[in-house]
Amino acid sequence: MRISELQTPALLVDVHDLDHNLATMARALPGPRLRPHVKAHKCTELARRQAAAGHRSFTCATIREVEGMAAAGLGEDLLLANEVLDARRLGALADTARVTVAVDSAETVAAAAAGGVGEVLVDVEVGLPRCGCAPEDAGRVADLARSKGLTVRGVMGYEGHLMLLADRAERARLTAESMARLARAAADVGGDVVSAGGTGTYADNTVATEIQAGSYALMDTAYGAVGLPFRPALTVLATVVSASSPSSDIQPPWVVADVGLKSLGMDHGNPTVPGATVWFCSDEHTTMSFVQAGAQPDEPRSVRVGDRVRVLPAHVDPTVALHERMHVVDGDEVVETWPVDLRGW
Amino acid sequence: MRISELQTPALLVDVHDLDHNLATMARALPGPRLRPHVKAHKCTELARRQAAAGHRSFTCATIREVEGMAAAGLGEDLLLANEVLDARRLGALADTARVTVAVDSAETVAAAAAGGVGEVLVDVEVGLPRCGCAPEDAGRVADLARSKGLTVRGVMGYEGHLMLLADRAERARLTAESMARLARAAADVGGDVVSAGGTGTYADNTVATEIQAGSYALMDTAYGAVGLPFRPALTVLATVVSASSPSSDIQPPWVVADVGLKSLGMDHGNPTVPGATVWFCSDEHTTMSFVQAGAQPDEPRSVRVGDRVRVLPAHVDPTVALHERMHVVDGDEVVETWPVDLRGW
Repeated sequence: MRISELQTPALLVDVHDLDHNLATMARALPGPRLRPHVKAHKCTELARRQAAAGHRSFTCATIREVEGMAAAGLGEDLLLANEVLDARRLGALADTARVTVAVDSAETVAAAAAGGVGEVLVDVEVGLPRCGCAPEDAGRVADLARSKGLTVRGVMGYEGHLMLLADRAERARLTAESMARLARAAADVGGDVVSAGGTGTYADNTVATEIQAGSYALMDTAYGAVGLPFRPALTVLATVVSASSPSSDIQPPWVVADVGLKSLGMDHGNPTVPGATVWFCSDEHTTMSFVQAGAQPDEPRSVRVGDRVRVLPAHVDPTVALHERMHVVDGDEVVETWPVDLRGW
Repeated sequence: MRISELQTPALLVDVHDLDHNLATMARALPGPRLRPHVKAHKCTELARRQAAAGHRSFTCATIREVEGMAAAGLGEDLLLANEVLDARRLGALADTARVTVAVDSAETVAAAAAGGVGEVLVDVEVGLPRCGCAPEDAGRVADLARSKGLTVRGVMGYEGHLMLLADRAERARLTAESMARLARAAADVGGDVVSAGGTGTYADNTVATEIQAGSYALMDTAYGAVGLPFRPALTVLATVVSASSPSSDIQPPWVVADVGLKSLGMDHGNPTVPGATVWFCSDEHTTMSFVQAGAQPDEPRSVRVGDRVRVLPAHVDPTVALHERMHVVDGDEVVETWPVDLRGW
């Protein structure tokens, strides 16, 4: 099938850019040094490519992601890097997958034990005010877990506040500070896993035994601004459905494409369209102008109704969560279509 | 089923608030004076309630919404208030639904005719730089449509830039200005339909023969700030999965609930949690503090790990698009569960 036959909006994944990203990361962090985070693509077919690149342990953010990965036969070593108060659905996977869950409190330890999950990581707050116990509490949480019969594999922490720092040296310095907190906790907790990091810090985090990067596979414009060796592989294909009248009071001329708030994660701001200035997004529309500053208002419009444009989302994770499928493309050809099968909870 | 048995995150619809909203709107705009927009809830069961309240013509934003409404037997008069360049899936519904599509250009007229759609509205730009031809071009577009054998039912326009204006008098004044543009176009186009308006202007738009409001049914915090007689009926149920350590360097104490960028539309900003200050959202988390300004830092935390909280989204439309179902609740009881069955394209 040709791209021109696709209905829009449609997620496109450039196979060469994807392969480049997977190969680049596999060289930097081979095999178990990377625990790819599936939340960034929610797609077991893409996870299968990551497994083929050598990474057979995965990170998940939701129980549904864990279930889906197990059902796809990718359950060799699944970490739910998130706290849950009801772990029964995880416990039910005992026969088909190895499941480890994050704990950071007496309540989440009790839930893991009650749900029948055998293994945990102690989640440690490393500077991002989100989940994780204080480093000085980590040993106590580990002891509690062991007292409930759980195996404590080690610690995890996520320096998420540092991922998008543009200054590489500053990012490395603050990552080291953040990971010193995790190392302190790891010494108290024991076990052999120190799981941390992400696409922004994968090259600078020297404390983690495994890096939980996810966005590197598809990328987005926020990570694209950080100076990483990964290419934007994901775009949203759109059709230009309307163009302004030359006589409109509103200038410069604009066009409207059929992607919007329901096909783009918006928390990192507007998407990027090469050559255009994006004005705003509505539910199913992006209004933009292709007229460059200083151009004459009567200059012929370069983009017309019916044309296709490719829209780069600002944040990959919530973008994929809005789509049922992604089309893998090689030039103008759709070579595969993968369900985004890990959506929901 | 009790709400406490639901897994989180989960969309909750308060049945009394929903009924209040539907009844309030049906009194203001009875029967065909309202053409409810299904994009705001994407749920045929909710549309069925709107039909029971007297509104049997509906507005859609996507072809999938039109198809789903037709399949649900709600296809008496469906308007796709959006431009499409490939109308074949709409034309295929000819035996099961009455479908009208918006056109604003020669290309969209040609697509409607080629796709087998029989009826159109001429979409007019009324001040929002999005779809719609200039008012002075509307007659020409209508003539072109008629020359292709299409029935032109009238005009539509959307004063979307005015919906969230807080000053009611200013909103009414600008709506009148905007609708003067639509009335001018309507005179040139002919037909008996003037379709426009939304939840923010439903009471002030005196030109439209029918109002395309959608958000009034479930509401959100953005519309909640405008002073309308509709109640917030939609919340996202969340579980508190983590709480900060009293010894954390970061103060004041915070908790983390399991709703985030993948369960909340974020284009209108952070959600609201009654009693809390929301700090930020991550993919599956909202970090917030329940400590009021001026409180002592050692004051007992009022919200604990395992507690449930209700999160009010800032924008209803992209929020529902992220969920597979909504639970209709009466007090603590889940009385019905409705699929969000109009998602996708």
